[in-house]
Amino acid sequence: MGSSPQQPVLKDLTIDNITENVQAINAGCDDRRARFLLERLVVHLHDFARETRLNTAEWEAAVGFLTAVGQACTDVRQEFILLSDVLGLSLLVDAIDHPKPPASTEGTVLGPFHSHEARELDNGALISHDAEGEPMLVVCSVRDTSGRPVAGARVDVWETDSKGFYDVQYADRDGPDCRAVLTTDDAGVFHCRAIVPVPYPIPSDGPVGKLLGKLKRHPYRPSHFHFMFDKPGYDRLITALYLRGDPYERSDAVFGVKESLVVDLETVSDVEGFAEKYGVPPSTRLMRYDFVLVSDEETAALRDRLAREALQKVGADDLEVVDGLVVPSLD
Amino acid sequence: MGSSPQQPVLKDLTIDNITENVQAINAGCDDRRARFLLERLVVHLHDFARETRLNTAEWEAAVGFLTAVGQACTDVRQEFILLSDVLGLSLLVDAIDHPKPPASTEGTVLGPFHSHEARELDNGALISHDAEGEPMLVVCSVRDTSGRPVAGARVDVWETDSKGFYDVQYADRDGPDCRAVLTTDDAGVFHCRAIVPVPYPIPSDGPVGKLLGKLKRHPYRPSHFHFMFDKPGYDRLITALYLRGDPYERSDAVFGVKESLVVDLETVSDVEGFAEKYGVPPSTRLMRYDFVLVSDEETAALRDRLAREALQKVGADDLEVVDGLVVPSLD
Repeated sequence: MGSSPQQPVLKDLTIDNITENVQAINAGCDDRRARFLLERLVVHLHDFARETRLNTAEWEAAVGFLTAVGQACTDVRQEFILLSDVLGLSLLVDAIDHPKPPASTEGTVLGPFHSHEARELDNGALISHDAEGEPMLVVCSVRDTSGRPVAGARVDVWETDSKGFYDVQYADRDGPDCRAVLTTDDAGVFHCRAIVPVPYPIPSDGPVGKLLGKLKRHPYRPSHFHFMFDKPGYDRLITALYLRGDPYERSDAVFGVKESLVVDLETVSDVEGFAEKYGVPPSTRLMRYDFVLVSDEETAALRDRLAREALQKVGADDLEVVDGLVVPSLD
Repeated sequence: MGSSPQQPVLKDLTIDNITENVQAINAGCDDRRARFLLERLVVHLHDFARETRLNTAEWEAAVGFLTAVGQACTDVRQEFILLSDVLGLSLLVDAIDHPKPPASTEGTVLGPFHSHEARELDNGALISHDAEGEPMLVVCSVRDTSGRPVAGARVDVWETDSKGFYDVQYADRDGPDCRAVLTTDDAGVFHCRAIVPVPYPIPSDGPVGKLLGKLKRHPYRPSHFHFMFDKPGYDRLITALYLRGDPYERSDAVFGVKESLVVDLETVSDVEGFAEKYGVPPSTRLMRYDFVLVSDEETAALRDRLAREALQKVGADDLEVVDGLVVPSLD
């Protein structure tokens, strides 16, 4: 047909020539990064169908599944993030985009329940109003990789109530609860009063829950408390602390647990002066941690180096930087 | 950590070990075909992220895009099928699942506008009530690969109106129009009165339309008329006929055009006796075609042979048949 990658003739396409022709027609995109992402997406999508000999009924089932995932999304539920989480993609993307040098705090999955409704509260605030929860004092510091306190960092914290539900999962809620935005003080410290986290199932009444059932996987996440740190000049850190000894510590449905993020809860009376200093009963449980943020420059250099190493390992020798990301050469 | 593929310890997962551990936890699925599909899906999804060094902002954009695609779907609009169509996946899956021996009619994309509302009408029925359309008589035959007429085949036909819209795209419609289910007579013939198809854009007001815009692709399909054939013992044939000389004949937005399906319209007066036989004015345009269906057995054997050849070509030597599909050995 005289078809060429530059001037595709989109006719008589077959199992063997459809991929190159879809690439050819998509090559008109003038956003180089988008063009590269689309090119790799089409290769993987088509290879998946060719390798598995995907049939029409399976394709229809996939269309139906993805449609149901999309339609399960609401202002307060993100079923596609849940799908990404249970397939390990969320953890993988975080690891690629936010590499951590050895001396810093590791990241983990954001999860679908972060919300922008959280109120900015002062240090010491009570962030959980669930009377059924076991009170827990959170006292943490934030430093840079040289050990210097990071003051004025924005610290987003969130957790479930004692029943394992986030505020946004209640249709009749009045406003945000079990979440807040705190700010580190001059010593890089932030603290608040919360409750001891509990394990809970990710929402399993939708299509992702059905998928987990089909895969004979349980939907539980081990007990954890979420943190997100923002401060200009530092790479955003999305992480969480997990409680040691949780029944799901080694089988998190969304693959988020890292040994460096597993903590032993203490009791306030374990630390001299804490009960008075923070105005809580001595028997209150205590979560402490020293977080270490990485500068934007250090993160960018590490991301760049890891990308080069990984891509060279898979045989992509000709690399270039597009939109700040190292990728195989596009031409 | 003593982790093994059989007993995964889902902790401390990294860019390099997340894939094998997700596979390990998914391996509990007792549906072998589903397990195989998930395994290949996870490999391709993770490899895509690793190769492109996908970042968090891009992942968020993808989550937002897929959510918008899901939410654009309604009872009468299937945006995920549209997405599959513009990425060439629909054509590919049809080619894999419905291979055609040389003497038979080729298949093409179903598209998102087939509907189960179509009425069963007698041969000769008027299926388009659009007075603005140019009348067209459709007279076709259906045979098997030995040339024998296939009587009693169910023939689903559908097309747009003269403005390029399917009935289901109108919010205020009364019922189905421009579609019908016909049945072949003892000579394997079916006929109806329709209108000359026109080119039209696929719905471009949604997320898939935005994607096409980003890729600098036009959303047009060349003029065509859809057919779907069902008869027990024969492989379902989903196909369409395209009009030669259409401005989009070589740039179909969904890659459906095949030379063997491009027809030259005739005029009823070209064929002696047709005007009287079918009771239409001699100046009426005429679409004729002889469709050839393939038996289920012949299709299955061909699908099996092509799968073996394709998989051996990519180095998968150890093949097995699972649920009637040839795939690389699962163990």
